[in-house]
Amino acid sequence: MSELRLNLVTREWVVIATERAKRPTDYANGVPLKAPLPEHLSSCPFCPGNENRTPQERHRLPDDGSWTVRVVENKYPALSGGEVGRRVEGIRRSVSGVGIHEVIIESRLHNVSTALMEPAHLHNVIRTYRERFILAHGDPRVEHVIIFKNHGEGAGTSLEHTHSQLIATPVVPVQWRERVYAAQQFFDNTGGCLMCAMLRQEKEEGARVILDTEHFLTFIPYAALSPFHTWIFPKRHSASFSTITDEEIKDLAYHLKAFLSKCFYGLENPDYNYVIKSSRPRDSENEYCHWYIAVVPRVVETAGFEIGTGMFINTSIPEKSAEFMRGAPVE
Amino acid sequence: MSELRLNLVTREWVVIATERAKRPTDYANGVPLKAPLPEHLSSCPFCPGNENRTPQERHRLPDDGSWTVRVVENKYPALSGGEVGRRVEGIRRSVSGVGIHEVIIESRLHNVSTALMEPAHLHNVIRTYRERFILAHGDPRVEHVIIFKNHGEGAGTSLEHTHSQLIATPVVPVQWRERVYAAQQFFDNTGGCLMCAMLRQEKEEGARVILDTEHFLTFIPYAALSPFHTWIFPKRHSASFSTITDEEIKDLAYHLKAFLSKCFYGLENPDYNYVIKSSRPRDSENEYCHWYIAVVPRVVETAGFEIGTGMFINTSIPEKSAEFMRGAPVE
Repeated sequence: MSELRLNLVTREWVVIATERAKRPTDYANGVPLKAPLPEHLSSCPFCPGNENRTPQERHRLPDDGSWTVRVVENKYPALSGGEVGRRVEGIRRSVSGVGIHEVIIESRLHNVSTALMEPAHLHNVIRTYRERFILAHGDPRVEHVIIFKNHGEGAGTSLEHTHSQLIATPVVPVQWRERVYAAQQFFDNTGGCLMCAMLRQEKEEGARVILDTEHFLTFIPYAALSPFHTWIFPKRHSASFSTITDEEIKDLAYHLKAFLSKCFYGLENPDYNYVIKSSRPRDSENEYCHWYIAVVPRVVETAGFEIGTGMFINTSIPEKSAEFMRGAPVE
Repeated sequence: MSELRLNLVTREWVVIATERAKRPTDYANGVPLKAPLPEHLSSCPFCPGNENRTPQERHRLPDDGSWTVRVVENKYPALSGGEVGRRVEGIRRSVSGVGIHEVIIESRLHNVSTALMEPAHLHNVIRTYRERFILAHGDPRVEHVIIFKNHGEGAGTSLEHTHSQLIATPVVPVQWRERVYAAQQFFDNTGGCLMCAMLRQEKEEGARVILDTEHFLTFIPYAALSPFHTWIFPKRHSASFSTITDEEIKDLAYHLKAFLSKCFYGLENPDYNYVIKSSRPRDSENEYCHWYIAVVPRVVETAGFEIGTGMFINTSIPEKSAEFMRGAPVE
């Protein structure tokens, strides 16, 4: 019989569908890994030599022609500069689309993805995330910042040159408010942080753990929403990604690269998204929120049940998926 | 500049991204409509003659070999019979996967989709929905019932013979609880139903209305989550789909067929989901909930921003999409 598991962070039920469960390898792309891309593509706006084809540059590392990381404004920004204006008309509420929408070009090479990136280079990418995250929150119009990556068409991008995005919004997402509220309720009940409790329990059981090092734990949550949906949790309690230290960045880079490398080899380069979920820097010391990274390989389509209920049917068993991922190779 | 709109039903913000907005025709499949399917396919488990290849039959209309609608148990049920058991271990919560998972085979013809269905036949399909919905709620283990359709691979199905599904869960989806709560808050503030207020405002403005008849209004909501995301609202206030009358079923069939026909011709047969969102029959008389149907053409992929925030970036302007849909042909 199937089992419904409650995801304490999203507060939603997940159907772990044992009757229709597949083997981990059934989720692999089933096609051989694509021929490698070229190192440089003259038509790619993110390749060196085409710097004038991107909108306003905001940051470059190092600060000369040999850059390896660049931050530019998004060409078609979802949100941009201006005054925050609110309107209420009848039952309609709107806010002007003020905010920040940046693209982080993660490499000067056209053919490098996170799974195959040099560790020292990935440190620089994550350090850039930290800088841009803190800077964006310095804007008084900004209420919330999300950093994310879309890898592959099925994950919402058509640009193959590796990049991630930062979007700063003038409103707090209701989803975020609800997670904070769930964390507060747990704190009221127990006097502790929900994520810290989850970390202890996952470490103790071990069945869903993929990687465990000094500063981070990578695991498939007990109530994972979809196959291989994975969380990378910092072990040190902090509500905000802004507090990550250089030493922790090195460890995080190892987790991110190793997990994505396991996806690359174990699932044959699936499309995926990852997102950094974090409180604002000014809330970094609160006791009940805990920042983390969610990685979502896009190996299934959501369907009417998920759209209609917000619940998920997961056709993989988290414990089996984690076992498979522990064994998958790392470059 | 873009605009953030608050969806009062989901309570989440939607970025209406004017800077990256596309024309309605940009969302069309861009390929000619596929060659028609055959009327009968001997390898299809839903085609007549293969009745023994489906699991237990629960209903057939009419009740003989000339059936035109059949209801069978899902071959790989997400939920099935048994005792409801709850477990609490540390911070883990689970419930046994008890429930109902049925497939409604909507036609004996292999090649008929809702967009092209005879009205009288579609009445029978919706009457079957009503019967199965009421029956499922008669099971004391059932807390919530959702009826939905997945059309096309991008919407989560690989079976092309037209069918829909019913899933009855032993828990209430948190998403549903939150919608009820939003409706209650609106009722507390105004003494009225949020959906009834929305109906009045949409009718008055007209800009987002696609179809308006005696019993139903079909419109693209002000804060539509994705391009052509559409709601079909009954005009008579009722919390539960179980109360729909035969006359209303005729009108609903017209809306469903006409809207899907407009999708078929205007967007070149996109994949889509539709879902019936409804309170239980026993809650049908509550004053603040209002059942409805959501139709979601799957013309875009959700990406990291949506996964990370629960907010949506909609690259179409609801008013322009509705104008396009008003003009799109109906079979």
